[in-house]
Amino acid sequence: MSTIQAVRWSPDGDAVRIIDQRLLPDEYVERDLRTRDEVCEAIRTLAVRGAPAIGICGAMGVVTAMTPLAHLPDAPFREALRDVARAIRDARPTAVNLAWGVDRLLRLAATTTGSTGHLLASLRREATAILVEDQAMCEAIGRHGMPLIPEGGRVLTHCNAGALATGGIGTALAPVYLAARGGRRVAVYADETRPLLQGSRLTAWELSRAGIPVTVIADNMAASLMALGAIDLVIVGADRIAANGDVANKIGTYGVAVLAHHHGIPFYVAAPSSTIDPFTPTGREIVIEQRAREEVVRPFGASTAPSGVAVCNPAFDVTPASLVTAFVTDRGVVRGPYGFGPEWVSGGPPP
Amino acid sequence: MSTIQAVRWSPDGDAVRIIDQRLLPDEYVERDLRTRDEVCEAIRTLAVRGAPAIGICGAMGVVTAMTPLAHLPDAPFREALRDVARAIRDARPTAVNLAWGVDRLLRLAATTTGSTGHLLASLRREATAILVEDQAMCEAIGRHGMPLIPEGGRVLTHCNAGALATGGIGTALAPVYLAARGGRRVAVYADETRPLLQGSRLTAWELSRAGIPVTVIADNMAASLMALGAIDLVIVGADRIAANGDVANKIGTYGVAVLAHHHGIPFYVAAPSSTIDPFTPTGREIVIEQRAREEVVRPFGASTAPSGVAVCNPAFDVTPASLVTAFVTDRGVVRGPYGFGPEWVSGGPPP
Repeated sequence: MSTIQAVRWSPDGDAVRIIDQRLLPDEYVERDLRTRDEVCEAIRTLAVRGAPAIGICGAMGVVTAMTPLAHLPDAPFREALRDVARAIRDARPTAVNLAWGVDRLLRLAATTTGSTGHLLASLRREATAILVEDQAMCEAIGRHGMPLIPEGGRVLTHCNAGALATGGIGTALAPVYLAARGGRRVAVYADETRPLLQGSRLTAWELSRAGIPVTVIADNMAASLMALGAIDLVIVGADRIAANGDVANKIGTYGVAVLAHHHGIPFYVAAPSSTIDPFTPTGREIVIEQRAREEVVRPFGASTAPSGVAVCNPAFDVTPASLVTAFVTDRGVVRGPYGFGPEWVSGGPPP
Repeated sequence: MSTIQAVRWSPDGDAVRIIDQRLLPDEYVERDLRTRDEVCEAIRTLAVRGAPAIGICGAMGVVTAMTPLAHLPDAPFREALRDVARAIRDARPTAVNLAWGVDRLLRLAATTTGSTGHLLASLRREATAILVEDQAMCEAIGRHGMPLIPEGGRVLTHCNAGALATGGIGTALAPVYLAARGGRRVAVYADETRPLLQGSRLTAWELSRAGIPVTVIADNMAASLMALGAIDLVIVGADRIAANGDVANKIGTYGVAVLAHHHGIPFYVAAPSSTIDPFTPTGREIVIEQRAREEVVRPFGASTAPSGVAVCNPAFDVTPASLVTAFVTDRGVVRGPYGFGPEWVSGGPPP
């Protein structure tokens, strides 16, 4: 089984240690992030990615960036904390977890008194709690999702919502890991997930490493596998789930959902409660990050289109709730009609 | 407007001159094919590709491969002709045009008497006729399809069914070229078309060259553009159309058809009559070529998946007739219910 740990404290606790996912599957490199800029850059360039993982990394990054400032008096320390939090929160716009993780620290700070050293220690405990809770959430998602996978089940997934995207065993892949751990035969088809190939680079890598059969396909092959009856269910992760159940996730997810619907194949979204955003009413209000054209037309340094040609590169799309068979959360499997209220926020509304 | 010519005779007529499409968009290189093996290799490695273009190249290739054998007596010449024809016909299995082009020469040979020199000259005229007819077919497809594109129309296409895929101005792109030539505003979204990227490498190249606005997208972005109302119609080409209207075309076409259907967007298949195969009753009987795993996981020499991981790489898929709004052929626009009979074969049944 997978023993990778995408985000954790470095041994002496002064850095966030991540697996640099830009280099996989060719090279396995761990990187230590200490400063605000190192954390922002790692999140922005997708060295660390996946909604839960960047939430954890963001919160832990606030702590490591503030650690050298522990000598400051209370007011300037808190001012620096707000600046660091804002910078890290803004590193990527779509996943709710990043803002959620950072805001949890700000909320704690608002109710914590005492020395800056004491405040910093509290923030560190809170960031650690976010990591540990995420690991527990992954396990819970796996337990709730496992019964959805039949013996011999063939699961299609898109992008990477596995161990590399979380602090634990993943979201979409958690039921797969637990099914395999329990001795059930399960096989995964991984959409390669253009442009950044998280499916072929990351999902295929971590599943192979765990000994789970995985087959890589180009994104455009999923439809024909479905038509051939080769897919029993789809499980994907989520970057943000609106109150009405609309889901923002990696570009291409929406197309997979339409195809699953057309073929009568269940389409599950696996996500921890931290991905649910009851304060965003529908998918229409979700900001979709647009990324650089080079990701599409200059992969791996090669030029795949004539120079200067126009390119469209949204990083996410929105799948309407009507196409989601069920959400697999750490609190259980939720079926429609969906209505996620404030009871889904563990930490209360944004500060 | 486009002036490229994907397949033609070399100036002295002893070779088939092609644009080597493996090198686009970085390099524009023309290549002369003379022997049977050169022709087969060019077709197999997609140096020349596109159903109509390989039909033309196959027929012309039979002629250039046979030219050095013009001194042979009748019987051994005809035996060599059958061997060459079989090898070239078998270079790729899915597109009907390749077998069609080669078989047209065999049929002519069967009814031609006289010297081998005379027979060879007849074969050359027939191969030239296939090229010239294809150019006329492209123009006719363009004329019939042009009214389907509204002023300001935004067309999604998949793979390359343009000038590079034919002897003329293309099939799917012919209506676009004629609309632009007629002063109509038209813009194209080109699916990049993994794994071989014919959309970003070839469609974007030839449209840019012709001054027609084109935007490259990853295949998995089409669904979200449709949801945003950014696509007015889809036009794709075809590699083989069965009697019942089922269509084999580049992998991913079927997914686009399902998405268009879901969003109420017209889905047109543009193809010359030579692509229609009344002797194949339905899509189920169409052989789908499986290609090498390296095309998916080792694009451009880079490794995009862990070594040894399983890969699925069908080159084509089958779109059921029910998802095709209309066929745009050189004989006019054909709407369902479809039933393509022997009247669609210009040359009669296979020999």
